[in-house]
Amino acid sequence: MIVVLKPNITKKDEVAVLKEIRKLGYKPHIMRGVERTVIGAIGDERTHQSLETLAVWPQVERVMPVQKRYKLVSREAHKANSSINVRGTIIGGKKFQVMAGPCSVEDEKQLLTTAHAVKKAGATILRGGAFKPRTSPYEFQGLGEKGLKLLAKARRETGLGIITELLSQDHCELVAEYADILQIGARNAQNFQLLIAAAKTGKPVLLKRGLSMKVEEWLLAGEYVLANENPNLLFCERGIRTFETYTRNTLDLSMIPIIKQESHCPIVIDPSQGAGRSDLVLSMCKGAVAMGADALLIEVHPNPAEALSDGAQQITLEGFARLMEELKPFIAAAGKE
Amino acid sequence: MIVVLKPNITKKDEVAVLKEIRKLGYKPHIMRGVERTVIGAIGDERTHQSLETLAVWPQVERVMPVQKRYKLVSREAHKANSSINVRGTIIGGKKFQVMAGPCSVEDEKQLLTTAHAVKKAGATILRGGAFKPRTSPYEFQGLGEKGLKLLAKARRETGLGIITELLSQDHCELVAEYADILQIGARNAQNFQLLIAAAKTGKPVLLKRGLSMKVEEWLLAGEYVLANENPNLLFCERGIRTFETYTRNTLDLSMIPIIKQESHCPIVIDPSQGAGRSDLVLSMCKGAVAMGADALLIEVHPNPAEALSDGAQQITLEGFARLMEELKPFIAAAGKE
Amino acid sequence: MIVVLKPNITKKDEVAVLKEIRKLGYKPHIMRGVERTVIGAIGDERTHQSLETLAVWPQVERVMPVQKRYKLVSREAHKANSSINVRGTIIGGKKFQVMAGPCSVEDEKQLLTTAHAVKKAGATILRGGAFKPRTSPYEFQGLGEKGLKLLAKARRETGLGIITELLSQDHCELVAEYADILQIGARNAQNFQLLIAAAKTGKPVLLKRGLSMKVEEWLLAGEYVLANENPNLLFCERGIRTFETYTRNTLDLSMIPIIKQESHCPIVIDPSQGAGRSDLVLSMCKGAVAMGADALLIEVHPNPAEALSDGAQQITLEGFARLMEELKPFIAAAGKE
Amino acid sequence: MIVVLKPNITKKDEVAVLKEIRKLGYKPHIMRGVERTVIGAIGDERTHQSLETLAVWPQVERVMPVQKRYKLVSREAHKANSSINVRGTIIGGKKFQVMAGPCSVEDEKQLLTTAHAVKKAGATILRGGAFKPRTSPYEFQGLGEKGLKLLAKARRETGLGIITELLSQDHCELVAEYADILQIGARNAQNFQLLIAAAKTGKPVLLKRGLSMKVEEWLLAGEYVLANENPNLLFCERGIRTFETYTRNTLDLSMIPIIKQESHCPIVIDPSQGAGRSDLVLSMCKGAVAMGADALLIEVHPNPAEALSDGAQQITLEGFARLMEELKPFIAAAGKE
Repeated sequence: MIVVLKPNITKKDEVAVLKEIRKLGYKPHIMRGVERTVIGAIGDERTHQSLETLAVWPQVERVMPVQKRYKLVSREAHKANSSINVRGTIIGGKKFQVMAGPCSVEDEKQLLTTAHAVKKAGATILRGGAFKPRTSPYEFQGLGEKGLKLLAKARRETGLGIITELLSQDHCELVAEYADILQIGARNAQNFQLLIAAAKTGKPVLLKRGLSMKVEEWLLAGEYVLANENPNLLFCERGIRTFETYTRNTLDLSMIPIIKQESHCPIVIDPSQGAGRSDLVLSMCKGAVAMGADALLIEVHPNPAEALSDGAQQITLEGFARLMEELKPFIAAAGKE
Repeated sequence: MIVVLKPNITKKDEVAVLKEIRKLGYKPHIMRGVERTVIGAIGDERTHQSLETLAVWPQVERVMPVQKRYKLVSREAHKANSSINVRGTIIGGKKFQVMAGPCSVEDEKQLLTTAHAVKKAGATILRGGAFKPRTSPYEFQGLGEKGLKLLAKARRETGLGIITELLSQDHCELVAEYADILQIGARNAQNFQLLIAAAKTGKPVLLKRGLSMKVEEWLLAGEYVLANENPNLLFCERGIRTFETYTRNTLDLSMIPIIKQESHCPIVIDPSQGAGRSDLVLSMCKGAVAMGADALLIEVHPNPAEALSDGAQQITLEGFARLMEELKPFIAAAGKE
Repeated sequence: MIVVLKPNITKKDEVAVLKEIRKLGYKPHIMRGVERTVIGAIGDERTHQSLETLAVWPQVERVMPVQKRYKLVSREAHKANSSINVRGTIIGGKKFQVMAGPCSVEDEKQLLTTAHAVKKAGATILRGGAFKPRTSPYEFQGLGEKGLKLLAKARRETGLGIITELLSQDHCELVAEYADILQIGARNAQNFQLLIAAAKTGKPVLLKRGLSMKVEEWLLAGEYVLANENPNLLFCERGIRTFETYTRNTLDLSMIPIIKQESHCPIVIDPSQGAGRSDLVLSMCKGAVAMGADALLIEVHPNPAEALSDGAQQITLEGFARLMEELKPFIAAAGKE
Repeated sequence: MIVVLKPNITKKDEVAVLKEIRKLGYKPHIMRGVERTVIGAIGDERTHQSLETLAVWPQVERVMPVQKRYKLVSREAHKANSSINVRGTIIGGKKFQVMAGPCSVEDEKQLLTTAHAVKKAGATILRGGAFKPRTSPYEFQGLGEKGLKLLAKARRETGLGIITELLSQDHCELVAEYADILQIGARNAQNFQLLIAAAKTGKPVLLKRGLSMKVEEWLLAGEYVLANENPNLLFCERGIRTFETYTRNTLDLSMIPIIKQESHCPIVIDPSQGAGRSDLVLSMCKGAVAMGADALLIEVHPNPAEALSDGAQQITLEGFARLMEELKPFIAAAGKE
């Protein structure tokens, strides 16, 4: 930690700070600058208590941490890219992967039609929500276990792995029984108890970025998964909340190079949530592929206008087939398969 | 719903929209304007499916909802202010209330000292976290049940009601056994399963505003509590996330008049989380009182510099006593007791 | 400046950093921590070139400035509060001041009626826009010089000082001839050429906070005024841009204690722009007074529904009189006159 | 405009609204819905006064505009893409263009070295700031006219067109004499007087997006240029301000498909300002190319560590050459030359 003192403080005030630093277990190191005195407090910031409380002492101007607080998810901990094996599909390897399917599982016909269509177009994982977190209590909340059974049926018929959302600790066992990847939604991205429960199932966890989550907070939420002995973590950028209202969220594609720099875990882009508008999905996908994403998570529906949730951001089966075709040259340009 | 069509579309495209509107159960009503044709879709937006999916049809420019989506929390549903009775302390009535105590319960001495001191200074509810949601898995996570027992002891000794955070459905029964008010934290504000579980305990629920939650989303999260047959809901503004870094969050005091306009539920202000800096707490409290808040939620610690969590935002026992004194003229000016 | 090195770098890479630090005129001071080596670069950060470029060297993890970059506006430079004398009205002293008037000067009757009414209710400065910055080129752009002449007439009739917006360097001489305070709008808050030109007129300058301006940037924009030898600067918070759409802006009242801490200049609150809704103005004003603002800037119009600009945020003459009455107990509670 | 009335209002209150709508020149059209009555106010919203003031009437719940407020920049006004011809270089056509050069012009050697290097690597326009808007008055403010003369010299030697920033109306004539494209910076994006002055020079104008500018505001700022009879407008996304601090700004690449949808003007991406970190520039460029940008604006410096401004975001000459090489497959995939 770096502690910056205010100018012109008394010797006594300075000594009090040094004493407190030592009391909290750090070794202080003084540097006298032109206008300010700066104290380096030497000690492991992850095992010692934070010195940030000093910031409100009248003689202290600022306290700045030096170390990163995440460990297991960091690139330092694991130099090589890590990858996730989902029923033979490798996410985070040479091959670019596409996860696609409806926002919500609505009925057998809707799901199976979609599953066959996305598989034919080249998707390798099927997405579909059985339990849905909805802003209003009066909206469709998902088919629950019935939805999970339909997903399992679609997997049997198509061979596609399944990704579906986990939104309650109470559903952990049930959802883990059916899913190949557990998705943690943006609104639960700092629901740490859910993260721990998900980690403990042993299934791969896809962690969406919260609506106003900073990079460090996102990595630390991921750290909850790895610290609970589950190495299979995927980060998924799905748009952040900004002042802009033209799009539902602002898809922050800079997370692709940033997660690659800071972490060894794969990075997935969700352009459907990201924009909230199906007419922007193709363009977003091209950008994500070009910038080095490991996979896409795309909402596809046989008839978006009648979808029970988020119709505005789902694309049609034909639209998806076209999109997969149009992405090919960009996947090649990015050096992927 | 209002559906705005693009200019110069074909008759056929217009008819398709009208047909879809009828199919989804609304009655269309056409208005031809100067440059645009606008269709009013008449029908209850809360029971019919949303028309927002039409927004991505090529012939549609925009879809705008007309109705508010919240019902039970709204001022329309309940004209008078509602109030919550916590062991004889009325929140939402003529008397201004102050909830105070440490961020985390750390040990018996810390808690009891604080409880006696805040009671003496005029607080009527004791706050203290037994289960703590922490950004990093390596930080202090609270004393758990031991903390709850200490809170109960403090209640026995001081007579103060207890507010403490509920952060896991699994703890519902346990926390509800000890707490007089269940606090739902900002990071769980859209953890709908937790909201439902909290509501079902029958205990009053204090719902903090999420870091990037819009007014409507906050009211709808509150709707989850009332829709699960628990009328005892308090809204608590604790700062939102903005671009500003000088303060940890931006305390949005405009929520006081806004919640009063839109809802009948009491509004509480948390200036400690709101600024993340103890030196701003007093000023924030004055503003909150003047603007008509029903209560304050303040973090107080015997020795903030050695607090196990969020030391920078906790004030001392003496600071709290001074604050209570300084608030008096503002409480009087606001017409409260 | 503090330069944090990455762990496990070579000696040669470290030496290169030290060399560059010296080359840019700083004296390096090494601290070896548990996981990281940190270099304190000693030298005046305001006269030396920034070391922030080092942040992109592969062996450097982070560079953190230590000094504040503003000087003349800072509390350190001038311990006492400074105040502005506008035709005998002191802003920043014991007496609380209210500036009020229409968003735009529209015609003689509208302005004079308003001027007399706000004076009678207790306002001491008259506001009114003659040149209006409008989001669209097709909106009313103000009466220009004719508006200034009407403001001068209102001053002659009422004795109220005049504040009006300066939005172009070309108008500097003209506006300064009529105005007692030059207002710099939020959209021009970092139009540095305009700030310099305004400063050079010698008239007091009221600097609104830009829509997404951080505290440091705002203070530095103010520094442009003082550095151009004009000591008469007022800061004015008028709401920042956030994700919230219920209000037009989010009025950040925490700026009152913050500007008081960091600077000696008076702080004014504009609740009209701040919320964009006249029904929230009274509540915002109460908060601002309680938190220690030096003055308010309020939009008042004889008939807001027919105002040529921003009608939704202007209050009526009667509303203003009531507001002034309701503020009295809060002004007293805040220890002002 | 759509005016939504509150439920259960009196007939008299409704009539008052209808009267006001007519008075402001619109023709009201009533629709009675299930819970709300909605009035369509028919009339051209760009020539009539706004009805938004009605929003604060007690009987009115909301007012929603129907028309878009921009006209000349809109895709409706001009179906085909427009393009800008800069000394034979076409921006907005089949060929992808790259503008590159130093943040600030520092001296002859720095500029000429860079100009020759970027030309060799494939850039077709040279960028370089002669007048620099700086957050602090104590930072390097640019070489002024001397810088412009160096840019002219670089143009003579390399044949590259010149883009440079205009930040003051007073410099209009001077800068327009040297520049081929006038750049309006993010902090001046709503400095409407500057936009008008820039438009009137007749030179092409590149308009950066303001730090917290919504799409509609940006398009309207562009409208100021076209409405002043200058058809040569380029939009440039350079990152918006969000809560994220890992990057200096959040580059919003979704602006590429959005500007293409809403407007006929070319869209340029500035990845240097966008991230504020040179190590992210290459990845951002790939995304921008893939998503259909017409051009890039990249900061390049012979020795970024010693740059007089924004060193952290400038890339080296070698880095630029490599980047141009790496972009080739993506430019081809995007169907450009």
